[in-house]
Amino acid sequence: MNTSQQDRSYCLVTSCPDRVGIVAAVSQFVAERGGSLDESNHHSDHDGQRFFMRNVIDANSLSISVEAFREQFTPLAQKLDMKWHIRDSLKPQNVVIFASKASHCLSDLLYRWHSGELNCAIPCVISNHENLRSIVEWYGIPFHYVPVDKDSKAAAFARMSAIVAENNTDTIVLARYMQIIPAELCRDFSGRLINIHHSFLPSFIGANPYQKAFDRGVKLIGATSHYVTEELDEGPIIEQDVIRVSHSCNKDDLVRLGRDVERSVLSKALRYHLEDRVMIQGNKTIVF
Amino acid sequence: MNTSQQDRSYCLVTSCPDRVGIVAAVSQFVAERGGSLDESNHHSDHDGQRFFMRNVIDANSLSISVEAFREQFTPLAQKLDMKWHIRDSLKPQNVVIFASKASHCLSDLLYRWHSGELNCAIPCVISNHENLRSIVEWYGIPFHYVPVDKDSKAAAFARMSAIVAENNTDTIVLARYMQIIPAELCRDFSGRLINIHHSFLPSFIGANPYQKAFDRGVKLIGATSHYVTEELDEGPIIEQDVIRVSHSCNKDDLVRLGRDVERSVLSKALRYHLEDRVMIQGNKTIVF
Amino acid sequence: MNTSQQDRSYCLVTSCPDRVGIVAAVSQFVAERGGSLDESNHHSDHDGQRFFMRNVIDANSLSISVEAFREQFTPLAQKLDMKWHIRDSLKPQNVVIFASKASHCLSDLLYRWHSGELNCAIPCVISNHENLRSIVEWYGIPFHYVPVDKDSKAAAFARMSAIVAENNTDTIVLARYMQIIPAELCRDFSGRLINIHHSFLPSFIGANPYQKAFDRGVKLIGATSHYVTEELDEGPIIEQDVIRVSHSCNKDDLVRLGRDVERSVLSKALRYHLEDRVMIQGNKTIVF
Amino acid sequence: MNTSQQDRSYCLVTSCPDRVGIVAAVSQFVAERGGSLDESNHHSDHDGQRFFMRNVIDANSLSISVEAFREQFTPLAQKLDMKWHIRDSLKPQNVVIFASKASHCLSDLLYRWHSGELNCAIPCVISNHENLRSIVEWYGIPFHYVPVDKDSKAAAFARMSAIVAENNTDTIVLARYMQIIPAELCRDFSGRLINIHHSFLPSFIGANPYQKAFDRGVKLIGATSHYVTEELDEGPIIEQDVIRVSHSCNKDDLVRLGRDVERSVLSKALRYHLEDRVMIQGNKTIVF
Repeated sequence: MNTSQQDRSYCLVTSCPDRVGIVAAVSQFVAERGGSLDESNHHSDHDGQRFFMRNVIDANSLSISVEAFREQFTPLAQKLDMKWHIRDSLKPQNVVIFASKASHCLSDLLYRWHSGELNCAIPCVISNHENLRSIVEWYGIPFHYVPVDKDSKAAAFARMSAIVAENNTDTIVLARYMQIIPAELCRDFSGRLINIHHSFLPSFIGANPYQKAFDRGVKLIGATSHYVTEELDEGPIIEQDVIRVSHSCNKDDLVRLGRDVERSVLSKALRYHLEDRVMIQGNKTIVF
Repeated sequence: MNTSQQDRSYCLVTSCPDRVGIVAAVSQFVAERGGSLDESNHHSDHDGQRFFMRNVIDANSLSISVEAFREQFTPLAQKLDMKWHIRDSLKPQNVVIFASKASHCLSDLLYRWHSGELNCAIPCVISNHENLRSIVEWYGIPFHYVPVDKDSKAAAFARMSAIVAENNTDTIVLARYMQIIPAELCRDFSGRLINIHHSFLPSFIGANPYQKAFDRGVKLIGATSHYVTEELDEGPIIEQDVIRVSHSCNKDDLVRLGRDVERSVLSKALRYHLEDRVMIQGNKTIVF
Repeated sequence: MNTSQQDRSYCLVTSCPDRVGIVAAVSQFVAERGGSLDESNHHSDHDGQRFFMRNVIDANSLSISVEAFREQFTPLAQKLDMKWHIRDSLKPQNVVIFASKASHCLSDLLYRWHSGELNCAIPCVISNHENLRSIVEWYGIPFHYVPVDKDSKAAAFARMSAIVAENNTDTIVLARYMQIIPAELCRDFSGRLINIHHSFLPSFIGANPYQKAFDRGVKLIGATSHYVTEELDEGPIIEQDVIRVSHSCNKDDLVRLGRDVERSVLSKALRYHLEDRVMIQGNKTIVF
Repeated sequence: MNTSQQDRSYCLVTSCPDRVGIVAAVSQFVAERGGSLDESNHHSDHDGQRFFMRNVIDANSLSISVEAFREQFTPLAQKLDMKWHIRDSLKPQNVVIFASKASHCLSDLLYRWHSGELNCAIPCVISNHENLRSIVEWYGIPFHYVPVDKDSKAAAFARMSAIVAENNTDTIVLARYMQIIPAELCRDFSGRLINIHHSFLPSFIGANPYQKAFDRGVKLIGATSHYVTEELDEGPIIEQDVIRVSHSCNKDDLVRLGRDVERSVLSKALRYHLEDRVMIQGNKTIVF
């Protein structure tokens, strides 16, 4: 997905109060500038009376620059009371990953990024443990060790926020980062801070979900990727999946089997996010 | 899904050579007549350079009748070289089901129709066996027994075609009807004749797929619903699914487990078809 | 699965404190009487230090009657401190189904029973609504209408318990029966009273799980079949499954899609139960 | 799964002509030597009249050494005409991986091996391309570059066979190794040479399965891991899985989505193989 000039596209994402004629107005605007649509997704949220739209425009078909598009589109967006942005596939997001000791989610993200599945830059990885430095650096990515203990928590997060700021970070991914994120960082990165929780939420919120799943005797275990909000494990869900387990699985088996679901769910959620497929409405997501 | 006046909708389905401005032109047309879009799906087929679109319009929002829509839309459709139709949810299709001895697919379709999941009329069921008469008639649906044997095959199909014609049949469903359909009927009902094959096509084409699956030792068995063409089991695939099996399953277990997949896949395929979600391009389908 | 003399089998199910030599002792006992094992399943519960075993014995291979087996096996069972039973496939369980207005689970169970997938007798169906009488009676099964309202609840359940007793009921199935079962009935049918809950437990316990799932914005919905205990939706889980949903599903779509999972999960759970595959250990199940 | 002395187990795998008393005789033998069974699996193949059994014995419970077990068990095995072996979990298999350019399967296997999920040694990786050397060496595993071209094929495979022999190889894994394996190597490693084919076999045998799947318009794509025999893609299937695709996927999407299934299926198949869960009967497998 690391796009070339030839595949260059602009992704136009909009939401506005629902009314007749939105699609007509926007597609007219694009067509008048020669824009060819590679993909188009719509959703009317009936409860919220809001309309969501995502258009992928072939950049080479458009007669104007993306900057000119932004300028010319603004009056229409204002008229329709839109929230909107347009992203150039050649200017991918900067994604900073927070990791802890567990390697499975981080390794999977790095592997997929390296093989071109995730259209983003990864300016650095921050971890409160040293054990993953070697694999991160193998990928040529800077690794920052920021230990977090009870007394130094504020200082540690201040340092992490500084690193995040220095790297012009668009999105933060918590790849099994086991610390609770300060409320301020949650707010600053609202809709841009993605977590993987190792249960099928809303079951087994909080710590030790595999132990809880084992104790309850469930027949499927799951994982949930969601945007982080100030309320623990309560943010908008992006993606979930499950895997079958049986009475013959002990808790370690659940942990092992769960790793596969976690890494798959997190990488899908990040991919959807990077492709601007995810829109937030209240505490829910639309995933085009 | 048996829609009421309140939920009434028109489903506009179009395909045409791809070019800039199709969405703009069609959505403009709809918006100018007050039409509110409940759902909208697009697809560009890059190989065939063809554009496919499905719009569900809230009937109550539209300022004109569906007949007037048809008349007024025609010039635009001609200009864009479109194949198109618009369907009124209050005028559902007539679906005739062909069945044989096996009850699982037929029973499931009748149950779903009865509970309102399938927006269609079922004017009759035709079978070459008598054993399913009772359940069909319990649902208040006429049952026609048309036996088929080697010598009378042409006569039998002539009678079936007559029944099909008398009932203004829009779509025929083969609910595990085990006879090969005459080429003429395949042509007459091109894109409107749906079969369920009890394997994951293209594996195990033809007779006895469960025996073949058992003999090959596959770890998943499947079912495939497709439009019937003159070439056996080679028509455009609408839906497929699989279920896990193991070495402990004998052939009868495969048959039993497969029944659940067959009925689920067939009912989904029919539902998609009735909702005008399925469009045919070459020997493949687009399923919105 | 309605077995004939030819396929007749005895299912021997045992659990006892774990120790060396249990399999040897039991299989020796069976082999000495000519018994050929069609299937054999073992499980050691390490937490509970308990050993569970299920053996399916080809009845025609055994040199003694099932009554003689019971008598001769007793000393060994006592020595090993076993809980055990042996069931003759020609003497299937009596299963009474409690239903309410919703037809999908009941219809599916009746269909599967009729087609021979469930090896049991269904002496009657009890419902607090009249609407399902016709389909139940089509299957030739007596239908008892026992309305339940706030003031008559005790009397209604007394009448239901009487019907249950008259029919020598082995197992009760709640096929979306929406009333809370009295504690006494829960205790009397401990491990023999099966419910289907329309969520992926422990998520969304109690009423309106689909509304709760919709509000939380989950990406998969599920169903759970469990043995009923006095604590609502907290009993041992037999089977669970899920289905994918998206932002385009409204609550009615969840209800519709969920029906397919509910009926599939309930029929599997009942089948496992009827085949003596389910053993309870604490608040969990072993499902062989 | 890299087991320690504490978790040490012996896996006893047997198959023999079916008759009454096999389980009794074997479990008696184990129990008399104090052996505690951690897991036990049986299967009667009715077609072949053959009985398969796998017992995992807690090594610390056994009163004799594994060598003594082998010696003492031999007379019983001969009496029952058994094929059998017993494996010590502390003496894991040597697995040599053949890879080509594609990294996804190899990377996944190395990651799982490194994290302890696969109880084996990997003495080396052999590839006909250089591009994966760096990641292999990062894991501390020797990498052998053996180019294969039309004229040197025999010489190349002779060199590979030599490397295989030098490393006391128990099992060879083809991690998307795109060359046809010489018949002699297939025979030498019969039941020990594992391939991953990038389709749901028997669909799309041979080259370019994703292109074929795309052309046929299937709605699910799959992967199959099987033992290699001299007939291309026809060997006994160990594991298969599928993933859903749609009309909006182009061929590159199928390739990308398929990678996840391939690596998951191959790693499961290898894990089953290493745990001695897979037994071959004719051209099929029993997977306990």
